[in-house]
Amino acid sequence: MADESNNPLFFRRILITIDEDDRPSTSRAFRFAMTMARDYQAHLGIASVLESNDISIYESLMPDKLNEKRDELKAIVKEYADKATAFGVNDVRSIVAEGGDVDDVVLQKVIPEFKPDLVVCGADVDFASHGHPGAIGLRLAKKSDVSVIVIR
Amino acid sequence: MADESNNPLFFRRILITIDEDDRPSTSRAFRFAMTMARDYQAHLGIASVLESNDISIYESLMPDKLNEKRDELKAIVKEYADKATAFGVNDVRSIVAEGGDVDDVVLQKVIPEFKPDLVVCGADVDFASHGHPGAIGLRLAKKSDVSVIVIR
Repeated sequence: MADESNNPLFFRRILITIDEDDRPSTSRAFRFAMTMARDYQAHLGIASVLESNDISIYESLMPDKLNEKRDELKAIVKEYADKATAFGVNDVRSIVAEGGDVDDVVLQKVIPEFKPDLVVCGADVDFASHGHPGAIGLRLAKKSDVSVIVIR
Repeated sequence: MADESNNPLFFRRILITIDEDDRPSTSRAFRFAMTMARDYQAHLGIASVLESNDISIYESLMPDKLNEKRDELKAIVKEYADKATAFGVNDVRSIVAEGGDVDDVVLQKVIPEFKPDLVVCGADVDFASHGHPGAIGLRLAKKSDVSVIVIR
């Protein structure tokens, strides 16, 4: 094997997880992800998760309510995607996932499907209804098998 | 305040923590830190910590032994610094710190002095003698108040 220890290292598939609420660290994390994706011609995946906890049992019996929440989240992710495209990122994919716990959905559905080599997350991104205390980025940093950056 | 939400975001002071042992994730982390520092003209700090645990009580009574260990670590950090300079990083600083636990030394001495806006760490960097289980990068990601990237 050639000695690669002096080669540049950057990322080719960058996944950013977006909070529904617009927290300051989400904005900074998104700016970093856009900058990397533009400057290194990386693929950018913008993901958000519709949590089960966001949906009450009452609402889950009403498909219209659920569709409405899903559409809201899709619109938020699309807004970020449009921003990234305008910023100069060539390859942007919007991802809205659902079903269960945010950590689990990102680790078990979003990451295996998008196959990022870097996950970008704001330090204070913690979905409101989330069961575990502490920020999602830190848990992804611990559990994921790809590189993770926690932006503050 | 101007709307900065569409501005690029990158780092200007990058700190990498180096393990004495040459683990694969250290090498990748170092390549990423060099790449960012070169491409964005950032300051690069290369830090390693001489742990108290690395020094037996017997050795601590022998200043020569301690000096020898310190010199060994300085030589390792200097090797990384020379590599970074050859790679094209203009501003490189070598940092060898000591006194206590790696986490504490990095958080309480190295970060306040170098003032990084990004800390880069390999996922499996865990000083051999370290008291806590788990990788240092994850603990820095949790405890630090700057952005942290854990490289795998």
